[in-house]
Amino acid sequence: MQNTFFTPGPAALFPTFEKHLKTFMDRQLGSISHRSQQYRDLHRFTVEQLRMLLSIPDTHQVLFLGSASETWERILLNCVEHESFHLVNGSFSKKFYDYAHALHKFAHVYEKPMGEGFDFAEIEVPEYAEVICITHNETSSGVQMPVADIHKLKAKNPDKFVAVDMVSSAPYPALDYSLIDTAFFSVQKAFGMPAGLGVWIVNEACLAKAERLRKYDSLTIGAHHDLPTLWKNALKYETPATPNVMAIYILGKIAEDFNRIGIETIRKETEHKAGLLYNLVKKHNNFDAFVKIPRHQSQTVVVANTKKESSAVISKLKEKGLIIGSGYGEFKGSQVRLANFPATSVAQIEGLVKALGEV
Amino acid sequence: MQNTFFTPGPAALFPTFEKHLKTFMDRQLGSISHRSQQYRDLHRFTVEQLRMLLSIPDTHQVLFLGSASETWERILLNCVEHESFHLVNGSFSKKFYDYAHALHKFAHVYEKPMGEGFDFAEIEVPEYAEVICITHNETSSGVQMPVADIHKLKAKNPDKFVAVDMVSSAPYPALDYSLIDTAFFSVQKAFGMPAGLGVWIVNEACLAKAERLRKYDSLTIGAHHDLPTLWKNALKYETPATPNVMAIYILGKIAEDFNRIGIETIRKETEHKAGLLYNLVKKHNNFDAFVKIPRHQSQTVVVANTKKESSAVISKLKEKGLIIGSGYGEFKGSQVRLANFPATSVAQIEGLVKALGEV
Repeated sequence: MQNTFFTPGPAALFPTFEKHLKTFMDRQLGSISHRSQQYRDLHRFTVEQLRMLLSIPDTHQVLFLGSASETWERILLNCVEHESFHLVNGSFSKKFYDYAHALHKFAHVYEKPMGEGFDFAEIEVPEYAEVICITHNETSSGVQMPVADIHKLKAKNPDKFVAVDMVSSAPYPALDYSLIDTAFFSVQKAFGMPAGLGVWIVNEACLAKAERLRKYDSLTIGAHHDLPTLWKNALKYETPATPNVMAIYILGKIAEDFNRIGIETIRKETEHKAGLLYNLVKKHNNFDAFVKIPRHQSQTVVVANTKKESSAVISKLKEKGLIIGSGYGEFKGSQVRLANFPATSVAQIEGLVKALGEV
Repeated sequence: MQNTFFTPGPAALFPTFEKHLKTFMDRQLGSISHRSQQYRDLHRFTVEQLRMLLSIPDTHQVLFLGSASETWERILLNCVEHESFHLVNGSFSKKFYDYAHALHKFAHVYEKPMGEGFDFAEIEVPEYAEVICITHNETSSGVQMPVADIHKLKAKNPDKFVAVDMVSSAPYPALDYSLIDTAFFSVQKAFGMPAGLGVWIVNEACLAKAERLRKYDSLTIGAHHDLPTLWKNALKYETPATPNVMAIYILGKIAEDFNRIGIETIRKETEHKAGLLYNLVKKHNNFDAFVKIPRHQSQTVVVANTKKESSAVISKLKEKGLIIGSGYGEFKGSQVRLANFPATSVAQIEGLVKALGEV
């Protein structure tokens, strides 16, 4: 029996994934040189499809890394001389903050408990912070930050970089890149691919800072995947080292599929499916929503408290071929996490809602 | 027409690759959690097959990174406080050296022109160098360092780490890990896979040093993929971030295939096929070997000077579906590079020799 995955990543593969994989193999793209015109055309196609999908302007480059976690490090090395500022409300935003410590940056934090979100009005950005690190969608707790609040943060702090972790929400958030200096995601969430590629969107102001920092003796911007080298190669539609060609190719084809469906349709369908899930969680006696305030409720990762051990719910659904995620960390036994990515259709989410209702 | 790739990476896919890819898809391994027992079993299998294939003892961990280039950075960050020493004779050994500069290490170098190799007796290791960085197989020039000379370097310098770049030769070199502190390779060369995974083999002494350096305020060992965190996760057969599960799975299956064939058979066949290629290059008027001294001639990447423009040779072979590499950098137009990896059989190499002979 083939299972349907509603796990928050690695997640269900997008329905067209296998077709694109077959084309990759048939065209022998796994063996082509990453310094050939054939590769550059492939790379360019993916970048262009992502630009169209996410409305990324020419002021920003689209770069490919090993993972989104690597991007945390690259942003901190390349864009922070002394101080960073982090909004932390879960395990992944916490890791971004921990990375800053490990790199000996002076890291400020505004922290909230798991399950709570941030609003623009309450955030005081430290005076000397160079970058404001925001997790649009905290995968561990199912908390989302409204995009309008992210934009307001930049408008109020135009001299600071705004960095947005949208690992488990892209392409859902409609970011305005005239207000976002850098953002990043990985492909094993809403793009419905196996893990192994991070995508880093970053602007010229970040590049200028990295080029300035590179001249200092007192710090390093790193040697592998430093921003100036990535950028220089990206202008030729290449990467500094041999990249994950398979993932870059398939990402381009899935982004093209998304563009055919239309980003607005994808966003509306995401909200419709999230509505079905939150409605079930609200009505059913066995569940209640972990995130209480609707504007902070993630549209892509729905987290519910379970009355009994969550493992019982997970097992029941597994018998029906429906794989859902457990809670994260300390909530492992008392919560379930339900991914709501484009790979799972309205009908599949309806089936999940029905099965959860019958538990 | 399906082409046969004799390019030095990305290279021909190993004949069983497609079968393993199909199993990966059929078993839905692209969607499994990287924190599940199913994943840990998969990860463990790959590590065990690599340990068997390369005779890696328990003193060493097998770690997974985004690429071999990333490993250059991780070794320098984690294992060097002040000084490194590099044997440089081509573009890739040069990059390892450049990475040390970018990370503000004091990098010593013993440099030779492209096409020349190193012998143990001539190498003077600087007194305070902490690591000796050796490129077993310089992909850009087709120069190989005899394994016995690498072993002697460690025996003479037991207090220094020896790091071996075997990107385009593993599993060919029979390294004795009681004398090698760390070594690494990528999967798109002799393992016949698409690019997107680096494998880092590293011992407890390197770990101990990284743990010591981590406590210093004066330097950073990095935040992403720092050695202590990688090691801690590897003990559970996990990775710190979501890894390239597809590549880790298929690498394990191809390593198992290699173990079935037998590493000695693979090594002998590699030498036999290299002999066929060097013999052609020696005899044929249109070619001569770039690397003159036989003990420095790579067994896995044969580089030949071409009498006419190399592009003419490359085009002629392409008409027959045989894809070979151009020269590297300044030698692009005057050399060809012929990969000799396990994915191409004796019969295929004989076919290549015949076609080259007819040019």
